[in-house]
Amino acid sequence: MKRLIIDMDDVLADTSARIIELFNERNRQNVTKDFFYENDFYKYTKQGKFIPYREELYKPGFFANLEVFPNAIKVVEKLNKKYDIYIVSAATEFPNSLIEKVDWMAKYFPFISWRKIVLCGSKSIIKGDIMIDDHSRNFSEFEGRKLLFHAPHNYNEKGFERVKSWLEIEELLG
Amino acid sequence: MKRLIIDMDDVLADTSARIIELFNERNRQNVTKDFFYENDFYKYTKQGKFIPYREELYKPGFFANLEVFPNAIKVVEKLNKKYDIYIVSAATEFPNSLIEKVDWMAKYFPFISWRKIVLCGSKSIIKGDIMIDDHSRNFSEFEGRKLLFHAPHNYNEKGFERVKSWLEIEELLG
Repeated sequence: MKRLIIDMDDVLADTSARIIELFNERNRQNVTKDFFYENDFYKYTKQGKFIPYREELYKPGFFANLEVFPNAIKVVEKLNKKYDIYIVSAATEFPNSLIEKVDWMAKYFPFISWRKIVLCGSKSIIKGDIMIDDHSRNFSEFEGRKLLFHAPHNYNEKGFERVKSWLEIEELLG
Repeated sequence: MKRLIIDMDDVLADTSARIIELFNERNRQNVTKDFFYENDFYKYTKQGKFIPYREELYKPGFFANLEVFPNAIKVVEKLNKKYDIYIVSAATEFPNSLIEKVDWMAKYFPFISWRKIVLCGSKSIIKGDIMIDDHSRNFSEFEGRKLLFHAPHNYNEKGFERVKSWLEIEELLG
């Protein structure tokens, strides 16, 4: 059985949507996630005129309330019969997120055991056959197939096999 | 630089000492850790006449207050210059332990970044060159050198390279 490594933020959970919401709330802006598929999120939000939002990621509650991506639950449940799935999330930077991430998985993906969840800092020590992630830096030491999950912060990265939705992943791997 | 994977419970932290203390408190016993180097801990404590202790491991505070093993700090600090060290702990079974483990590492091993901490369920997806662990089951899919850290629950396991203290690890790997 092939081992499939799946990321959480911006792959299972719509973290960017919540970050953009925070940015808009703080700055009385009304930019959409679509806007950042054509404009660099970091460049745009880090202009001096805007109030930063990043400390919110360190507070309790941030990760607990993220929305799950459309079709992620049913596709992961299906793939779970065919693959040895591990959920691997870079999370130790945010100590308050750790329990929230385990709880979030139990809420939306109860068929994934705590045995299959990995919370780490760097993904360079993870081995497997396929990795789905929104950050290409997580692929740098991975030896298997790499699928870049389309996100505002990676829209202009070239040279990766890119997936845009869970239905597309179902077609590719199902 | 070789990658060295180090476990937390019963390798950096003296988890067994606290478990035996809990067992003694609950059962008005006075058995020592040394006793369990010659008698099977699980067989002994799971006799029907004893009050169980295991639910304590799920409560906040259990992991926060564990003692660090003698010489672990100075030897890990020394090895950290020679090896790419990752701390890998099976922890997702105990959601309350997650933040406590990150905090415990920051308290005793501040030279180890959150980037190098991994909290998981199974260690079968971890790759590296050397693994120090007290549970031989964690070696089953590991491709590198395996060092079994001596503990009451593994005293009679044969066939592994065994280390009994951090000073011995310093001699072997330093």
